[in-house]
Amino acid sequence: MNKTPITSLGEFGLIDHLTRNIKQYDNGTIKGIGDDTAAIDAGDDLILLTKDLLVEGVHFNIMYTPLKHLGYKSIAVNLSDIYAMNGTPTQVIVGIAISSRYTVEALDEIYDGMKLACEKYKVDLVGGDTTSSVSGLFISVTAMGKVPKDKITYRSGAKANDLICVSGNLGGAYAGLLVLEREKEVFKANPQSQPDLNQFAYVLERQLKPEPRKDIVDLLMEKEIVPTSMIDISDGLASEILHICKSSGVGAVIYEEKIPVDVQTATVAHEFKIDPTTFALNGGEDYELLFTINQEDYDKISALEEIAVIGHITENPAQTDLISTSGNVITIRAQGWDSFREDS
Amino acid sequence: MNKTPITSLGEFGLIDHLTRNIKQYDNGTIKGIGDDTAAIDAGDDLILLTKDLLVEGVHFNIMYTPLKHLGYKSIAVNLSDIYAMNGTPTQVIVGIAISSRYTVEALDEIYDGMKLACEKYKVDLVGGDTTSSVSGLFISVTAMGKVPKDKITYRSGAKANDLICVSGNLGGAYAGLLVLEREKEVFKANPQSQPDLNQFAYVLERQLKPEPRKDIVDLLMEKEIVPTSMIDISDGLASEILHICKSSGVGAVIYEEKIPVDVQTATVAHEFKIDPTTFALNGGEDYELLFTINQEDYDKISALEEIAVIGHITENPAQTDLISTSGNVITIRAQGWDSFREDS
Repeated sequence: MNKTPITSLGEFGLIDHLTRNIKQYDNGTIKGIGDDTAAIDAGDDLILLTKDLLVEGVHFNIMYTPLKHLGYKSIAVNLSDIYAMNGTPTQVIVGIAISSRYTVEALDEIYDGMKLACEKYKVDLVGGDTTSSVSGLFISVTAMGKVPKDKITYRSGAKANDLICVSGNLGGAYAGLLVLEREKEVFKANPQSQPDLNQFAYVLERQLKPEPRKDIVDLLMEKEIVPTSMIDISDGLASEILHICKSSGVGAVIYEEKIPVDVQTATVAHEFKIDPTTFALNGGEDYELLFTINQEDYDKISALEEIAVIGHITENPAQTDLISTSGNVITIRAQGWDSFREDS
Repeated sequence: MNKTPITSLGEFGLIDHLTRNIKQYDNGTIKGIGDDTAAIDAGDDLILLTKDLLVEGVHFNIMYTPLKHLGYKSIAVNLSDIYAMNGTPTQVIVGIAISSRYTVEALDEIYDGMKLACEKYKVDLVGGDTTSSVSGLFISVTAMGKVPKDKITYRSGAKANDLICVSGNLGGAYAGLLVLEREKEVFKANPQSQPDLNQFAYVLERQLKPEPRKDIVDLLMEKEIVPTSMIDISDGLASEILHICKSSGVGAVIYEEKIPVDVQTATVAHEFKIDPTTFALNGGEDYELLFTINQEDYDKISALEEIAVIGHITENPAQTDLISTSGNVITIRAQGWDSFREDS
């Protein structure tokens, strides 16, 4: 038997490899693997189904992650996938594998965070499985939602000349991660240190307690806009725009100066001597929505503070360009977060 | 903050503790936590949703578990929960966290097993999340299914004088586990040993590659029987009958001599000097169906080889009796598998 290292394929290559030749048996399956969620026929509506894992030491470091925030985030990142289909989440089901060195109070903290997210987004926690692990904490959440058939937004609907839009701002979650990692090293060197993290409050919250953009989905509904395509930004803008282009068979041009970056994110980027645009393109975990709209809808969104138009779709699938602030043309490549990357 | 060991509550106590005060926000949630699956309104049908985790070192030992079987089992145990609601599984979504010391070929084996189970039970694999873990293999599967509203069977519908039925035979999966554990020790002592496991083929398959009882659900449909209550046997007969009694507010009497045990299971039990009935009551992982039917339906099932009537429901919730073969009355207590038990 061959022995191919998992790291050799990369996350998306691995998924493509494992899910090749997947057969379908149920007529109700409208969309299987390959979008933010699966979509299943249910009369006028489609049922949406998605799952995200959070693994200790890979997705979070227990040293600086409050367990309540972790529980909250585990729900939030799944709801984000439902919103990315223009849907409404309705139920979640949770699995936790936890080493017996954790206490009941620790599990309570995780559950309290989950319940808080469920309350905020009016989603029902309807079941799950709690079990022990030999070591480490694993959280697996599945979210279910629904969307009217004429409102669903896949990754595949972007068309030439559509406008590329993004909600909120980007790169903050990665800025928060860098600050936390730096403080961890400071703490290791001097456990008596009392860091003042107030100045980083916003980016820390972006990392530790992201909010899925229900408000954007509501806003689009209110403005009677159905995006032509949509995806949530979990792996960074570069990776996500490439997903949309690949699924839709189109290209894209994005303008660096249009990419929304918060001032605190930019401050951290400068402290770390990294270009803030790199945070936005490759940082990931912002859980903002990236979507495309028909140019006709431009007037409906141009005045909305929470939505930025950052570029447009082109006919040429080979073109995925970033026009830099200084006017250079740079090809966008996916360098998003990959849990199997050797250096991650 | 208090520091209560997780082990102090037991699996069911822990679940009760964590899921207390769970609020519901969605009108569509018909059944939340507390049955084999959740049930969600979808017009004439109910949607069923369930999740089971399989954790390396807790639920399986990688030393003697073929990865293909593991993939198969991870799907099978979830489908079993859907069948236990008298439903039809339609989609699954899978999460795998795996250490990078595993190869792509190892992941292929797991996926091949999953695909095989999906093919056999005509279920669609519609998505998931594959990520790395620091150590160990974690599999989280969520299954979705459906059932007409007038066919759903909860744990809570058993009534006095209903007959208690079980499919197939019990204790085999535990017998298989004991054989595998014994061979592991033999192998450790002498890696050159070539065990002849043919004589244990049936119980090994019961442990490594269980089949959910779709055929029983089909048979009940064909015979026009809707059980008054149903549960799948994942934790052992004792634990499951107590779930039905507690949920239904009734008692039960079970006759030891009626409990179906395969001859190979009995042989292993004798080798290990354990009563075969103990395997059936407390072994678990048989994934047979335990259900109750109205006495009027007795004639429809009395001739069916794959279904045994093992007792009846009583009015008194305090009564859960096993009548032993020698005529003694023994109170049934749950000693099913508990992943948090210190000695497990």
